Amino acid sequence: MDELDRFYMQAALEEALEAYEVGEVPIGAVVVRRGEIIGKGHNRRETWKDPTAHAELLAIREACQQLGGWRLTESTLYVTIEPCSMCAGAIVLARIPRLVYGAQDPKAGAVDSLFDLVRREDLNHRVEVTSGVLEDECRALMREFFQELRGKS
Amino acid sequence: MDELDRFYMQAALEEALEAYEVGEVPIGAVVVRRGEIIGKGHNRRETWKDPTAHAELLAIREACQQLGGWRLTESTLYVTIEPCSMCAGAIVLARIPRLVYGAQDPKAGAVDSLFDLVRREDLNHRVEVTSGVLEDECRALMREFFQELRGKS
Repeated sequence: MDELDRFYMQAALEEALEAYEVGEVPIGAVVVRRGEIIGKGHNRRETWKDPTAHAELLAIREACQQLGGWRLTESTLYVTIEPCSMCAGAIVLARIPRLVYGAQDPKAGAVDSLFDLVRREDLNHRVEVTSGVLEDECRALMREFFQELRGKS
Repeated sequence: MDELDRFYMQAALEEALEAYEVGEVPIGAVVVRRGEIIGKGHNRRETWKDPTAHAELLAIREACQQLGGWRLTESTLYVTIEPCSMCAGAIVLARIPRLVYGAQDPKAGAVDSLFDLVRREDLNHRVEVTSGVLEDECRALMREFFQELRGKS
């Protein structure tokens, strides 16, 4: 396991914890370019009443603002959970060359679980994928969140 | 052809024209609920330097703000061009029951062209789709835009 990947995934996990603390499904993401974190985000669907406020989209938008352009070349997106269709699509649109994620999402994952939207021959951009980085930590946070939620209801 | 569908697609076309006028790829969208337009959007990728600033996402976000919640039940999204993966994913996430689009996008369409992300058995929400509404007008606007672009370069 690459030490740098673990380091940046830890930063994504810290974002996920921020989501957890405000009662959001705990998913976090960071965009890294030339060793620097240029975008961060965590899920804010409930607080913002916005179905598109996923960690990845917010991190991508912040990174583009930081760079002053919409192409995130030379960048890696780290996210704690496998991206859904919307986020996988956004990664391709932003021309991100590399995606690193923690745990799979068997219900909605659009990279390895349900289908693969980021390495298709028929798209004009393809993404290199590394999965399973800090997988146990990423999954444990989700499990804890949903157990707590079920306990409440 | 349903007269109401043509009426709301005309509103989406007006959004597309606004994109055209500022040099953006001319795609427009509106969200309609109980006969009222509650969200509008047009592509702003270049002006905002944001790869996620597609017409559909902006219209969805505005509609959710308007409603005060992230579930766009009883709503129809009208968009001039077939949605890409990101936008198709967002339509499912927002639980939009119906999508109406104008012209297909053979290069990136994620509803009928490359694949179908909105009517999958394995997703927890499926969307009813109507296509081809004001198709010629929607496609003509795109063609004109790209011809003008090639003329300039």
